[in-house]
Amino acid sequence: MKIRVGFVGLGLMGGPMATNIARTGYALTVYDVLSEKCAPLQDLGARVASSPKEVAECSDVVVAMLSDSGVMEKVLFSPDGIVAGAKAGLVFINMGTIAPDATRRAAARLSEKGIKMLDAPVAGSTGHAKEGTLGILVGGDQEVYLGQKELFSALGKDIYYLGPSGSGEQMKLSMNLLVAAQVTALSEAMVMASKAGLDLELVGKIIGESNLASNLISRKIPNIVNQSYKPAFSLKLMQKDLTLIIQSAESLGVALPTTSVTHQLYTSAKTRGHGEDDSSSIYCVLAEMAGLD
Amino acid sequence: MKIRVGFVGLGLMGGPMATNIARTGYALTVYDVLSEKCAPLQDLGARVASSPKEVAECSDVVVAMLSDSGVMEKVLFSPDGIVAGAKAGLVFINMGTIAPDATRRAAARLSEKGIKMLDAPVAGSTGHAKEGTLGILVGGDQEVYLGQKELFSALGKDIYYLGPSGSGEQMKLSMNLLVAAQVTALSEAMVMASKAGLDLELVGKIIGESNLASNLISRKIPNIVNQSYKPAFSLKLMQKDLTLIIQSAESLGVALPTTSVTHQLYTSAKTRGHGEDDSSSIYCVLAEMAGLD
Repeated sequence: MKIRVGFVGLGLMGGPMATNIARTGYALTVYDVLSEKCAPLQDLGARVASSPKEVAECSDVVVAMLSDSGVMEKVLFSPDGIVAGAKAGLVFINMGTIAPDATRRAAARLSEKGIKMLDAPVAGSTGHAKEGTLGILVGGDQEVYLGQKELFSALGKDIYYLGPSGSGEQMKLSMNLLVAAQVTALSEAMVMASKAGLDLELVGKIIGESNLASNLISRKIPNIVNQSYKPAFSLKLMQKDLTLIIQSAESLGVALPTTSVTHQLYTSAKTRGHGEDDSSSIYCVLAEMAGLD
Repeated sequence: MKIRVGFVGLGLMGGPMATNIARTGYALTVYDVLSEKCAPLQDLGARVASSPKEVAECSDVVVAMLSDSGVMEKVLFSPDGIVAGAKAGLVFINMGTIAPDATRRAAARLSEKGIKMLDAPVAGSTGHAKEGTLGILVGGDQEVYLGQKELFSALGKDIYYLGPSGSGEQMKLSMNLLVAAQVTALSEAMVMASKAGLDLELVGKIIGESNLASNLISRKIPNIVNQSYKPAFSLKLMQKDLTLIIQSAESLGVALPTTSVTHQLYTSAKTRGHGEDDSSSIYCVLAEMAGLD
């Protein structure tokens, strides 16, 4: 029997992910609050639902790629939500980045309805989503995970099972901590060099050729050198994730001294109007603080 | 005429660097306060001097690889120092990491004696020093730099000219800022994951396979996973470099919010007895702060 897959949330990441599911040959039903987002999937043969409830009625597995836990809870638990349309045994996979605590709360509520939840946030950007080469970080019941490996293979290349509910989100937060820290440290290093009169293009070249150059850093250096912040990952999303990181660390009893300062800088950068720019525009705030114009 | 090279400071980095100069065929004179460090170079045909003054008397170029600016000033300006033995036109190349300000002060004093100074700190570890594949970051007069390119080629692979006196040190500080930040962020990310109950070996594998893995991060992950901190770069040297970074930033009027916190953590780690461990032992301090044992 062909597995019926539902997909809710067809944004910058969800759109290409749903496209890969359709192309792999699954029977797909999609929903997005912006109905025009569904058209390209319909062209690929997907059924377009008028609510998350209808998605659940037509699906054995529902994948969600949503911006935060508030939206996810609405999609799950409102009167026309997934729970209202789900049969017992449905698998719900949340692939957006939300708090591990919120994940476990949702999983517990769904469990009462006979719905099994996995958290499976992704590492990678829009390009990886299109190519189906995302990293996927899975938390939840291991048997349920094993049953969905084939579906995950349509979306990602490196698929990791981390442990019980919330573990995938927890790993994602550790990775995003590293993203924010690398971008901020690169910015501090380049602001210091710039104020000292060094040529930023040469500074970027030297860092890019050094053993300090992660792929992430190599991609961000040209943004700073050219002062051009077209978003690959928007600053407001980075700020949101840092809020999740600091809250999660607090609930674990973990102090994150440098990350807490990074969080403050991103909050200020968002306030100063960089929310829609790439996260590397944190450089602009540090440059202003250093009197560079 | 064969160029006569002097080398002062035959420690973990200086020893293999002087060895490469000897092997390239330069007429080499060496000095170290620990005279036993000179024996391996003597075996390669180097002359062993009894003072920096004697090194200068026998050399057209003198390279120094010393631990800080205090030692460098002593080697230069004390009665049996380099200046006492130098003829006008001598080139002095400092390859240790010291403050850009101290570099410019020393260069100005040497200039009065007709001695030309380059700052040329290195990027890389003992392994790179042995292989002659260091990165070399040069500041000082460009003509003087061009005259020494062949000598630098005996020591390093990627050789960059940054600008006037102090520019090489300034670039080195920006790179070491990134080193300290990456190691600290990796530690914060892994402490959070560990406290949340994730398997640190798996966490390390996922980060190591991600787009966040610089060569530096890939080398530090096993230290944290195995709680084994054999020094590739000792924590006390990292702490010293962070002090130079913060002082240099202050004199430039640059605020470094996250680096200042990193500096505080390294100061505490040194106080708590990790000075001789690898810089990645900063993890231990963060783990203790999180109640992990």
